[in-house]
Amino acid sequence: MSMNTFGHLFRFTTWGESHGPALGATVDGCPPGIELNEEMLQIWLDKRKPGTSKYTTQRREADQVEILSGVFEGKTTGTPIQLMIRNTDQRSKDYGDISEKFRPGHADITYFQKYGIRDYRGGGRSSARETAARVAAGGIARAALAQLIPSLEIKGYMTQIGPNGIIGERDMSEIDNNPFWVPSAVTAKNWADYLDDIRKSGSSVGAVVEVVAKGAPAGLGAPIYAKIDTDLASAMMSINAVKGVEIGEGMNAAMLTGKENADEIRMGPDGPEYMSNHAGGILGGISTGQDLVVRFAVKPTSSILTSRKTVTKSGKDTDLITKGRHDPCVGIRAVPVGEAMMACVILDHFLLHRGQNGAEPLGVFGK
Amino acid sequence: MSMNTFGHLFRFTTWGESHGPALGATVDGCPPGIELNEEMLQIWLDKRKPGTSKYTTQRREADQVEILSGVFEGKTTGTPIQLMIRNTDQRSKDYGDISEKFRPGHADITYFQKYGIRDYRGGGRSSARETAARVAAGGIARAALAQLIPSLEIKGYMTQIGPNGIIGERDMSEIDNNPFWVPSAVTAKNWADYLDDIRKSGSSVGAVVEVVAKGAPAGLGAPIYAKIDTDLASAMMSINAVKGVEIGEGMNAAMLTGKENADEIRMGPDGPEYMSNHAGGILGGISTGQDLVVRFAVKPTSSILTSRKTVTKSGKDTDLITKGRHDPCVGIRAVPVGEAMMACVILDHFLLHRGQNGAEPLGVFGK
Amino acid sequence: MSMNTFGHLFRFTTWGESHGPALGATVDGCPPGIELNEEMLQIWLDKRKPGTSKYTTQRREADQVEILSGVFEGKTTGTPIQLMIRNTDQRSKDYGDISEKFRPGHADITYFQKYGIRDYRGGGRSSARETAARVAAGGIARAALAQLIPSLEIKGYMTQIGPNGIIGERDMSEIDNNPFWVPSAVTAKNWADYLDDIRKSGSSVGAVVEVVAKGAPAGLGAPIYAKIDTDLASAMMSINAVKGVEIGEGMNAAMLTGKENADEIRMGPDGPEYMSNHAGGILGGISTGQDLVVRFAVKPTSSILTSRKTVTKSGKDTDLITKGRHDPCVGIRAVPVGEAMMACVILDHFLLHRGQNGAEPLGVFGK
Amino acid sequence: MSMNTFGHLFRFTTWGESHGPALGATVDGCPPGIELNEEMLQIWLDKRKPGTSKYTTQRREADQVEILSGVFEGKTTGTPIQLMIRNTDQRSKDYGDISEKFRPGHADITYFQKYGIRDYRGGGRSSARETAARVAAGGIARAALAQLIPSLEIKGYMTQIGPNGIIGERDMSEIDNNPFWVPSAVTAKNWADYLDDIRKSGSSVGAVVEVVAKGAPAGLGAPIYAKIDTDLASAMMSINAVKGVEIGEGMNAAMLTGKENADEIRMGPDGPEYMSNHAGGILGGISTGQDLVVRFAVKPTSSILTSRKTVTKSGKDTDLITKGRHDPCVGIRAVPVGEAMMACVILDHFLLHRGQNGAEPLGVFGK
Repeated sequence: MSMNTFGHLFRFTTWGESHGPALGATVDGCPPGIELNEEMLQIWLDKRKPGTSKYTTQRREADQVEILSGVFEGKTTGTPIQLMIRNTDQRSKDYGDISEKFRPGHADITYFQKYGIRDYRGGGRSSARETAARVAAGGIARAALAQLIPSLEIKGYMTQIGPNGIIGERDMSEIDNNPFWVPSAVTAKNWADYLDDIRKSGSSVGAVVEVVAKGAPAGLGAPIYAKIDTDLASAMMSINAVKGVEIGEGMNAAMLTGKENADEIRMGPDGPEYMSNHAGGILGGISTGQDLVVRFAVKPTSSILTSRKTVTKSGKDTDLITKGRHDPCVGIRAVPVGEAMMACVILDHFLLHRGQNGAEPLGVFGK
Repeated sequence: MSMNTFGHLFRFTTWGESHGPALGATVDGCPPGIELNEEMLQIWLDKRKPGTSKYTTQRREADQVEILSGVFEGKTTGTPIQLMIRNTDQRSKDYGDISEKFRPGHADITYFQKYGIRDYRGGGRSSARETAARVAAGGIARAALAQLIPSLEIKGYMTQIGPNGIIGERDMSEIDNNPFWVPSAVTAKNWADYLDDIRKSGSSVGAVVEVVAKGAPAGLGAPIYAKIDTDLASAMMSINAVKGVEIGEGMNAAMLTGKENADEIRMGPDGPEYMSNHAGGILGGISTGQDLVVRFAVKPTSSILTSRKTVTKSGKDTDLITKGRHDPCVGIRAVPVGEAMMACVILDHFLLHRGQNGAEPLGVFGK
Repeated sequence: MSMNTFGHLFRFTTWGESHGPALGATVDGCPPGIELNEEMLQIWLDKRKPGTSKYTTQRREADQVEILSGVFEGKTTGTPIQLMIRNTDQRSKDYGDISEKFRPGHADITYFQKYGIRDYRGGGRSSARETAARVAAGGIARAALAQLIPSLEIKGYMTQIGPNGIIGERDMSEIDNNPFWVPSAVTAKNWADYLDDIRKSGSSVGAVVEVVAKGAPAGLGAPIYAKIDTDLASAMMSINAVKGVEIGEGMNAAMLTGKENADEIRMGPDGPEYMSNHAGGILGGISTGQDLVVRFAVKPTSSILTSRKTVTKSGKDTDLITKGRHDPCVGIRAVPVGEAMMACVILDHFLLHRGQNGAEPLGVFGK
Repeated sequence: MSMNTFGHLFRFTTWGESHGPALGATVDGCPPGIELNEEMLQIWLDKRKPGTSKYTTQRREADQVEILSGVFEGKTTGTPIQLMIRNTDQRSKDYGDISEKFRPGHADITYFQKYGIRDYRGGGRSSARETAARVAAGGIARAALAQLIPSLEIKGYMTQIGPNGIIGERDMSEIDNNPFWVPSAVTAKNWADYLDDIRKSGSSVGAVVEVVAKGAPAGLGAPIYAKIDTDLASAMMSINAVKGVEIGEGMNAAMLTGKENADEIRMGPDGPEYMSNHAGGILGGISTGQDLVVRFAVKPTSSILTSRKTVTKSGKDTDLITKGRHDPCVGIRAVPVGEAMMACVILDHFLLHRGQNGAEPLGVFGK
């Protein structure tokens, strides 16, 4: 069972609601002896936290993470690590209206139908605030990976906002220079104008996020039902508002012929080298050693200032304008979440592989 | 751990290689008292089995399923159901060449790297023959669903082959009348010509498959990490050659504004009615009661008659033409596999919901 | 994987160390709509908490539990419930000596060997303080069971301390009247004298605890590897210091003949009635509807005032007297822990049964 | 969920009924590259198989195991290994009477109550024939352990039958020389006479089995809920007819003082050496490197020739004499089953430890 738990050997269980006292993650299976402190996690939480630009919700949350267990004298002990983030800026009165009315496009109605009861304040458990806990857990995964796979680099960025893609060549060095984490300065400017209009009109828009991991070894992934692409699909689809997940060529793979799609191989000094990467670094659910490439689409925020038709708990028709503080493009803050999930999946599969197969590579060419 | 196991309460573990003596599925958690016999499963296996048209591999497999346990006097007993399918047409000599050379685009190289050893005959464990076991397990899920959710109907079909989509209106009654399970007679003819050319040229092409479930109740799905869309993404991405998964609008959701995307609601005689279905029947990971809509892209078969660059186990460069019997569009036979996975996910979540929340609906409008 | 997680559908993950800032349990899978508040949990924690009599450790912990999530307006919402207990009386200086020396009979040495690092303060993760989290989780299970199986009553008590058993007839009404929860006033007096001597001599002693659940329905338990007795064995053996677990006749079953052991059956007004209960209410891993009877032996506390031979982290021989505040009979405080685990197992199996088989009884006599 | 599955990383799922066409185990997570063939498994199955002496059931089953997957050219490939054992001597007519009457002490009645349907032939799924599948799976674990922990030796034997213990000193070299696997020639003779009387009188008797693993490394076991003793308790309690499980001193630990019970330590040339083993080789759920000692009590076979009171499916009182072919002491054949479970637990924890902590020992004395 894994209702609120993600992962096999490196596992985290998230808990907490948008307007409860706190939320967090219980992280189990972290290797012992990993250097870890709250500052190392805070870096990633600050990247995701609300209110950092005018393009994200104006809710003011410090998103300060506390480590309550599993770390001793600055190192992990191999026991569960409890991460807690206090909710501080809850303004629950903003949400009074939606205790009775279901916001279209939100989980309000399905949580009610499933459970018969729901914490309606800010979406309760279904709020994207849950992703803060993932980012914190991902920070632990990154700390462990820094020791276990030093070559690994994980980077997420947006590749599309509404109908707008990246203009011109990608420049990865630009990613941290703009609020969209888009690898292109000119695109960032263009998108800023576009999203300003969206924001001012009280509307919202979708986005596509791409996350790439460089330097992961070959051999990660446990076929058939814990393939690394299967787990990445599961990881990304579980993020709020995600409606599609792609590996490598993704949906575009349908358009290609076998000749175009299969990545040819030549022997390099350190092993096989691929002449292209349509596969996104995964064959048969196992990493090839190339870049792991995953992409996901985030739907537009459903909370908008336009009146929409909906129903009430009492079973009456009504109309609703969702006030409150919302992201005009929730895809932006999904970038660090996607990175965190990538880190967790890679660490988990590293441990899983080491468990079944041992630390040493098993298939060696020329032996 | 779920390396070769899928599901939470209704779980199946598949086993077997393409050219071993047999393959199958161990199905655990099926409710007792469900009518079940081999003929009921064979219907679905016959739909997936190779050699039924010139558009699928010419390997001749009867794909005859045997039930070895868990059924007594025609009914399930609640104990594990073992399904076995003997491999009969293995022609292993066809594959001699690839014991040393890795086929580009195949899992040959990653299985070697991960495990240091692999059954190279026909791809061994990584062969799409594994999906026969899923189809058989899905047959059990369908039998249980027929008793538990009589309103449910699951239907899969292709919506794209290479660059070709469906021409004109969809006509669902046409699905079973053509080898592509495409809901359009004119499209079927057009695709037949297109794929004939591909096949004759020794090439292959990708496809998109859509699976829809009508009549599933609201309330299925266990947030946050066993959302029904998360499990569907995992289910479909685990199918051989799948590179992308979409729910409802899928990747296209990135293009939409909040106003366009959120499905408005009005009260109907039997509960809420949605005025559109951009969400694909899922909000917050829980079913809304609308059609569940999932789509996935299948990459082109990598085994083609064109020479491709690759390497050998000895670490030498070489070129390879993959002879043998292959599907020019492996997406075709993915249709019944997608249906089977949909059935398994829905049954699993039905049981999971019943376990945590009970059989009765919990949230009732107007109460 | 279930390294720090217990249960199938009703699952809890405990976290925290003896001398860290806090410890707790993340409880997932609780049915929604259950009345729950902190006072309902505190009752059980107070029963387990240290310092309530001279027979338990003099460490002063309020063991005040906070509910951080999963409860809204006094009812569970079906989402994860985070329970946190702050550590308040840590006096870490008491433990300075054991950072280097391993206490014989303790987990100090094995945690060091396994993880290479350990929080030595008070045993860290291996401390019996972890059981406070179980008792809190068990309180949630009891609250749910009160609604789902109103007939259920769970009661734990000691049946042996050192070589001393219960004197004379059992009187269940006496259980809450003495610090040993022993169902006999005369025995309580006798044990008090015995344990006083043990305590004053700086020694410790073992005990046997029995937990009985009355009123559980027939049909709970999921053979073969989640039998209810299997899960009870796992539940009890996971408690600190437990070395043996028995169901019904337990180890004594080896002494009996088939004629003596098999419980005969007669039809009663409400179903089958058993003429004895050697089986402890379980046949084939499934509950019969009789009393569920489990017993476990708790070894004597290893922290004693007698000098014992041991080794240091540096690999030197040494001798050690364990000072600090310890329980002369840790079995006493294991009583509420055993009750809590019984409650969790029964709720879990109730939900599991309802998931696979539905809420209604399936096998009805005379139909 | 683990209804019919045992283990974390090395996992097996058993399937099959006593009188169905076959039974077996689906083994997942075995490391690749392990030498394995059917003869290696058959050795252990032959030890458990019925009809080898007059003290076991006269049912004639060849218990011939077939490997259907996961092994290629004599080595494991890391993919699931399917083991199938055909049932050959089913004589179902012997069991006609019990389709309506429930045998006291058997799972007949609880399976009926839980599932509403049961395969009554020979106990169906609840038959001890299921343990053949465990023995086969254990054979795989032993093969892997022979490569991974060459020092490991696992040995099971009986220590008690009815009221009779071992007479005099244990002589381990005698274990394989008598039908009871008892380490004492004189005891074997004594027990033979005793059991002959039991058998001739149509009765049955219980037993205690002890299983010891020598040479397991320190550090195995994943606290808190996958402690190695927790998993051993679960493993043994899941075996048919087992009513009690003990580690080291077991239930007797309740009798001891802290001074008597804690095993003192001195530094030896290869690490710490313990001066006694009351703990059974486990502290805090983690192996110490000493002998792992587990014991379990098996109740007497409930199928006896004495008339017993019971009820029918129709809800009527009746009496029943269970004819058919039965073991007078089912504990005898539990010996190889206990060994198999020990092997599976050790391998599983070896892999689990290697996954989380790596292959190298982490805590090294004097560093």
